[in-house]
Amino acid sequence: MNSKYKTIKYKQNNLSKADDLISIEEPLEMIVRYKENNEWIDNSISITMRTPGNDENLVVGLLFNEGVVSDFSEISKIELIGEKVGQYNLQNKIRVTLSNAKNLDIKHLKRNFLTNSSCGVCGKTSIDSIEVTCKKKINSLKPQIKTSVITKVPNILRQEQSEFSKTGGIHASALFDASGKPLIIKEDVGRHNALDKVIGHSLKNSLLDNDNQFIACSGRLSFELVQKTLMANIGLLMGVGAPTSLAIDLAKRFDMTLIGFVKSESFNIYCGEKRILK
Amino acid sequence: MNSKYKTIKYKQNNLSKADDLISIEEPLEMIVRYKENNEWIDNSISITMRTPGNDENLVVGLLFNEGVVSDFSEISKIELIGEKVGQYNLQNKIRVTLSNAKNLDIKHLKRNFLTNSSCGVCGKTSIDSIEVTCKKKINSLKPQIKTSVITKVPNILRQEQSEFSKTGGIHASALFDASGKPLIIKEDVGRHNALDKVIGHSLKNSLLDNDNQFIACSGRLSFELVQKTLMANIGLLMGVGAPTSLAIDLAKRFDMTLIGFVKSESFNIYCGEKRILK
Repeated sequence: MNSKYKTIKYKQNNLSKADDLISIEEPLEMIVRYKENNEWIDNSISITMRTPGNDENLVVGLLFNEGVVSDFSEISKIELIGEKVGQYNLQNKIRVTLSNAKNLDIKHLKRNFLTNSSCGVCGKTSIDSIEVTCKKKINSLKPQIKTSVITKVPNILRQEQSEFSKTGGIHASALFDASGKPLIIKEDVGRHNALDKVIGHSLKNSLLDNDNQFIACSGRLSFELVQKTLMANIGLLMGVGAPTSLAIDLAKRFDMTLIGFVKSESFNIYCGEKRILK
Repeated sequence: MNSKYKTIKYKQNNLSKADDLISIEEPLEMIVRYKENNEWIDNSISITMRTPGNDENLVVGLLFNEGVVSDFSEISKIELIGEKVGQYNLQNKIRVTLSNAKNLDIKHLKRNFLTNSSCGVCGKTSIDSIEVTCKKKINSLKPQIKTSVITKVPNILRQEQSEFSKTGGIHASALFDASGKPLIIKEDVGRHNALDKVIGHSLKNSLLDNDNQFIACSGRLSFELVQKTLMANIGLLMGVGAPTSLAIDLAKRFDMTLIGFVKSESFNIYCGEKRILK
């Protein structure tokens, strides 16, 4: 989603007026509704700055990545609520009704959102605390990806990024099959949102086939993106940019493959090279 | 701060081993200590993923940008606490003792960190709610900046980004004077952290001279970066990347100058062109 803004462009010593397309950034408040002692409770658990238009996928992905739901069937209703506000006349609140709230720990969840990621620092290293929450086991050999598939990813991402081509100001995440075919791509001003949208969409449409898929991101690889890929049980994450130390450490600990600086002729493998076929 | 990681590099159909420098990403928990009814209270208000090494500047900038302190003298002590954890053997908790807690509103602050920015969505647009909190008035004519100063910024940023040149995976923010001289530059894996560090450092060292300075950032321009620049009372923000819609809307509302896509030969002015001298 984007909108036209008036711009003054400076080039070759000249200033000229123009219209530019700008990616929309708006807040979204997420409310979880669940039953406790036979009463319905609404609890506001997070506000995120996002690009509107895929709000349902975003919250499904987010709840899945935080371990609140393990399957789309645990959600009985998703509704945009509240009055329409701001110049884009948008509902900026979304309510998710859980049919099964057994994995909902409101206090833990709010703390997680406070951290901007699912780590804790309470006397442990952040990775140790992830290890406690994440009980998933990634297939240690799959997916198997050819080097020629990896080097094609940046081009495919660029072609599929419809918003980026217009505004130049938006991140993308995509789910690919092992042969390098893009299955779904989502864009957002926040790169963690783009990945949440991909995972939410995949969950809703039963697209996940973990042994034969990988995830690719347009930007740098942070701890948070590795953590979300791990929660989706996918063994390989690649990105066009650089990884952080904690992204590599987490990928190593869970035996994931992490690839950075992916270009049409080169890339760097930080761990898990056994999933790469020459 | 960075560390050496083993990498496998793919280039021209060959895989080879190498050592790469990677930017460190580690969590930092911020605790505020203040007096209430004659008793000292410690309250954990946020956890952020940051690049270690400038933690004191980071929390000072953050508390200033959230309106908790308006001057460095309102802080009586800053200490890294807790046991050393993780492979880098770091203290990942920092405690700030406030000598003046009159502007501390813990509930509001935690909510702000939950949002990842200082906006609210409670029935208002996010910008309306900023307007309530931000009582600052930017000088409507200053700083005055020449176009030739703007086009030099990307080169200066690149030269001064000592970490980026090593790892390629870190954001920068810098405070410049109106003539284009960089006064202070800070880097972090989170771009909002880089700006907090710049503002915290400037506050501690009394560097701010709002009418004759501007801020430049290495990446895209989000709502949050405009909001932080506004809190520092600086009238001009520029970035190498694209702005979001809300960044432009907020800059317009507060009569700031916002410039994006800054390159050595061109840039785009989204609002506040009166501060630009041809």
